Amino acid sequence: MRQAGRYLPEYRKIREKATLLEMCERPEWAAEVTLQPLRRFDLDAAILFADILLVPRAMGLKLEFVKGEGPSLSPAVRTLKDVARLRETAPEDSLAFVLDAVRLVRRALPEGKALIGFAGAPFTVASYVIEGGPSDHYLRTKAMMHGEPRTWDALMGKLARMTAAYLRAQVAAGAQVIQLFDSWVGNLSAPDYERFALPYSREVIRAVAKTGVPVIHFGTGTGGFLERLAAAGGDVVGVDWATPLDEAWKRVGYTRAVQGNLDPVLLAAAPTKALLAAAKDVLRRAGGRRGHIFNLGHGVLPMTPPEQVRRLVDFVHEESAR
Amino acid sequence: MRQAGRYLPEYRKIREKATLLEMCERPEWAAEVTLQPLRRFDLDAAILFADILLVPRAMGLKLEFVKGEGPSLSPAVRTLKDVARLRETAPEDSLAFVLDAVRLVRRALPEGKALIGFAGAPFTVASYVIEGGPSDHYLRTKAMMHGEPRTWDALMGKLARMTAAYLRAQVAAGAQVIQLFDSWVGNLSAPDYERFALPYSREVIRAVAKTGVPVIHFGTGTGGFLERLAAAGGDVVGVDWATPLDEAWKRVGYTRAVQGNLDPVLLAAAPTKALLAAAKDVLRRAGGRRGHIFNLGHGVLPMTPPEQVRRLVDFVHEESAR
Repeated sequence: MRQAGRYLPEYRKIREKATLLEMCERPEWAAEVTLQPLRRFDLDAAILFADILLVPRAMGLKLEFVKGEGPSLSPAVRTLKDVARLRETAPEDSLAFVLDAVRLVRRALPEGKALIGFAGAPFTVASYVIEGGPSDHYLRTKAMMHGEPRTWDALMGKLARMTAAYLRAQVAAGAQVIQLFDSWVGNLSAPDYERFALPYSREVIRAVAKTGVPVIHFGTGTGGFLERLAAAGGDVVGVDWATPLDEAWKRVGYTRAVQGNLDPVLLAAAPTKALLAAAKDVLRRAGGRRGHIFNLGHGVLPMTPPEQVRRLVDFVHEESAR
Repeated sequence: MRQAGRYLPEYRKIREKATLLEMCERPEWAAEVTLQPLRRFDLDAAILFADILLVPRAMGLKLEFVKGEGPSLSPAVRTLKDVARLRETAPEDSLAFVLDAVRLVRRALPEGKALIGFAGAPFTVASYVIEGGPSDHYLRTKAMMHGEPRTWDALMGKLARMTAAYLRAQVAAGAQVIQLFDSWVGNLSAPDYERFALPYSREVIRAVAKTGVPVIHFGTGTGGFLERLAAAGGDVVGVDWATPLDEAWKRVGYTRAVQGNLDPVLLAAAPTKALLAAAKDVLRRAGGRRGHIFNLGHGVLPMTPPEQVRRLVDFVHEESAR
């Protein structure tokens, strides 16, 4: 879960020299920051450093990161004509730099450490594409869903196909697990999720599943419709920090694996004793069942002390060994 | 659910002349904007115009509304000493202007229209008190919970007592229903909610329940722990827009009433046909059972067209009459 990042001084050192986009585009840098957390911590897997908005960029939109405001995509996609202008390109060409980074990481990873590739789920990516950047209320996104469902379906269809091709290319390049991030899906009501997002996530997951690698399906704010998120697919269902892991697993069903779900704020700000107690509670709720991937319930926050990450990783390994 | 507000031109007319705080402090204005939505729409109840941060202000903190940044409370409360400085004042004195507004509204309300009083739940108010304003991650709030639980408990105890006294005073002044807003509680994990928030919300709700008026207990982002929110109390459990109402009601139990839960974004941005279809879906999920209060799943957004509110209110009344 977003292991690379600003909380690591070695990451900041590279970040000083380059924009986020430049880091993604230069495979040596992307591979380097992907590997950084594994040099420090005894993690079981590396997760590729990339950005979910590289996909709409590869489809012809301009991606910029505005300081303090987050990503910006232009021109915003609002009409059927705008959707028609999006190009389904071959990821082997348009996203070759990501695939090169995947190859570099795989070559460098020691035996027994897996590489997780990833992409944003169609809904989350569509929301940026329609709003032109981050959004508080997803007004234009929901207006398109409900007001112009044909435009919505055309956009989601294109994003789903492009995302599936991109993830399959990541697998071909060496990714051993794929994680699909539907980070902002918690802003949808359950019926809207079911009608407007689920079919397209399912399409992506099915396409990736054909490669034979396991898929982790993650969303935040999903406590109200976790069963539906699980219904869209994924060998592993990622659980955000709000829903207790035992209750989440029961709702998802024990035939599926689960990932999660420590509150990232505790890693960033709680005293060690409280942090480890909370981690222990997550493990207790997992109940020693096979198929639990310990993780945070969302990404590592920038102000997280690296020393706490080490303590947490080591603690989870010690506890799991018992 | 926050019926008064910027989406109404008659509200903006008063707002031009006064700050938000001045509008709260002048009972005639507060009463006027409370009544405005009922003049336009056939609503069943009025909800008092006030701000949840009037309570910490009445305890000695300075409250300001910074344009574009939201509310600011100072000095931020971080230590046991800071907590000790908060004064439990008599709401009959420190919040007399709110109680005057309650009396004015009650006098003006026609027969058959109820007045809902309200306050923020201790957790939501505490988060502002600790962070000094709105927060993305509630880092200091969670750090206090887990690192300084005694400070946390002291703060929450004070807030709970003050809030209970304030709500009881609202009832004495004429409020016929009380709504407790735990707006940001969805940022807590379920175990944290249970340990750090629930006991204090329960304390407030119990104190209010003794007056005999019904209590609506509302939170957003509660899909992961709705049962626990319900366990804290409330004759009515407010459901945010993410969890389907039928599933929410089942989880809460049919001995309780429920309120909700149309996505406010649909009221603001969806075409009428889609809006009414979504409203009908909420009613269908309520299943014609007694004890459903139709409402939005959060507040009315500023860009909402008043005409849509009218259409929605009328549609719900027509459908309910069948």
